[in-house]
This record gives sequence, C-alpha cells and structure tokens, in this order.
Amino acid sequence: MSQTALFQLGTGLETPGAARNEGHSETAAPTPNPAEDRHDHFALRNGVRCAGVHLIIDLYEAEGLNDIDLIEATLRHCVEAAKATLLHIHLHHFQPSGVSGVAVLAESHISIHTWPEAGYAALDVFMCGNANPDACVPVLREAFSAKRVAVSELLRGQAA
Amino acid sequence: MSQTALFQLGTGLETPGAARNEGHSETAAPTPNPAEDRHDHFALRNGVRCAGVHLIIDLYEAEGLNDIDLIEATLRHCVEAAKATLLHIHLHHFQPSGVSGVAVLAESHISIHTWPEAGYAALDVFMCGNANPDACVPVLREAFSAKRVAVSELLRGQAA
Repeated sequence: MSQTALFQLGTGLETPGAARNEGHSETAAPTPNPAEDRHDHFALRNGVRCAGVHLIIDLYEAEGLNDIDLIEATLRHCVEAAKATLLHIHLHHFQPSGVSGVAVLAESHISIHTWPEAGYAALDVFMCGNANPDACVPVLREAFSAKRVAVSELLRGQAA
Repeated sequence: MSQTALFQLGTGLETPGAARNEGHSETAAPTPNPAEDRHDHFALRNGVRCAGVHLIIDLYEAEGLNDIDLIEATLRHCVEAAKATLLHIHLHHFQPSGVSGVAVLAESHISIHTWPEAGYAALDVFMCGNANPDACVPVLREAFSAKRVAVSELLRGQAA
C-alpha cells in the first residue's frame, strides 16, 4: 500500500462526503444567525476574570492512541460533553504511528498529540464563555483507558 | 453584505486557489518520502527528556488582532522561524471581532485566539523533535506590536 502520509483531503461545503485518507478534516455548516458567533467572552472562573480556562491534560498508559477514528469520535464527544460548538476539525495520522488533531471551537480549541508506542497523549482543552472544559476529562479517561491522567489548569488572560 | 460567519471554504489538493471567505484553511502537499513523517520524537530540553516543549504565550496591549491576513502570515512566519513543518492551517474570523487559528505541524501545533477589543491574544506553541519554539516569541512580539509578552514553558510528557 502506498503511503502518502502527508496527504490530507480537505472537506468543505463543496465536497460533501469526501473519502478519508491519511487525514480527516471537516468544517461546520454556516450558522443561520451569524451576527454574533463568538462564544468566548471573558468569563469568571472561581471568581477570577479571565479570557478562558485552559486545561493541560496528559494521559499515561493509554490505549487506542493510534486509532484515528476513535480519536476523532472522542474529540467530538468532548465538544458535546463540554457543550461547546465545533467549527472545524482536522486530524493527521503519522507514519509509522501517532495522531495529531485539533478541533477549532467557537469557544477556542481542543488539541491532541499521541505517542502510541509510549502510551502517552498530550491534550489541551481551551474553552471560554459558557463551555465546560472539565467535562472532557472523564470522556478522555474512558475513551483511551488511561491508567493515569494528569490535569493542570491555566486561567488565560487574567491580566488582559 | 451578508455575513456567513461560520462558512469556511476548505482548500485541499482538489481545489487549488480557492477564494478566502470568513475562514482560511490549507493543507500541505504530500511528501515524496512518506515512510516516516513524524518529527516529534521524544527530545531533551535542558537535559530533561520530554515529548515536547509547550510555550504558553500571552500578548497584551497588542495590535492587528482582528487582521486575519496578518495573523495567518504571522503563524506561517513562526513555523518558518522555528524550522517546523506545516501540515494544515485553519483560521476563523468571528463576528463582530476576533480570530481563532490553528497550525498543525509535524512537530505538534501552534494555536492563537484573539480578543482585539482587549488587545489580548492567547497562543500556544507546542513543538517536539528538532523544532525551536522559542524562535516564535520575537516574531509574535513584532508582528502584533505587543507591549507586554508573558511566556511560560511546560515540558510535556516527562513522565511518559
């Protein structure tokens, strides 16, 4: 099988149902009320005003980290659990192994980079407005059967 | 002018030269030698073994944060300065203002979220392998004329 590891088929409104290849990409349909689509107003987190909450999540001794379908489904599940709005998603499957993915949200983003051979994945869940980034943690732990999960929280833009 | 704020025209190998709209997206051409396209091996940073170096960068009192062309050009300039490899880039221009963008790299990613009305931008520069994330800081400071720049460094995956 030929490997075109950096080839990625972009899908947009003009190319519905395009086949997946080494990478997946998808962009959401237009909103019917576009006058204000920003969901990332400054927010309060435990009484602290900030632009957004940024969770740094590390998964250790995890499984399924080379399964691009599982990873994409899990990112989507995270967006739903957090009650966020998905604008664009892109995943890249490396050779010989590993996946990188980003989901661009109205409330900022989720990113994932996996090292399957080490059972390790690095994620960022950056959300603003009314989305709830904490809801992603159990989703990730379960999806990847991670034996250890480390979570740090940064309140971005406190000084803005 | 009608606003279709969430419409984004994906560009891939099948649709060269597609017009930009509210969002920009682009994916790199396939590599001629795809047998191993992974550039994010575990690395040493100041003698510490880690999956990658993750810079948390906050720009304050910055300008040009609603200029999607400037932001895209700056992300590309960062990738070049860091000697990283761009796989996919996507930006979204919010209404009434603000831009979110992600650049997926062979070495992980760069993300940006801007709050032009507050002169604030939140960036993440996550790089592995031989790329140099520090090179992005002066690029960003200059591009956005930021009066204050805060940089924190996380060594991801030390315990992997």
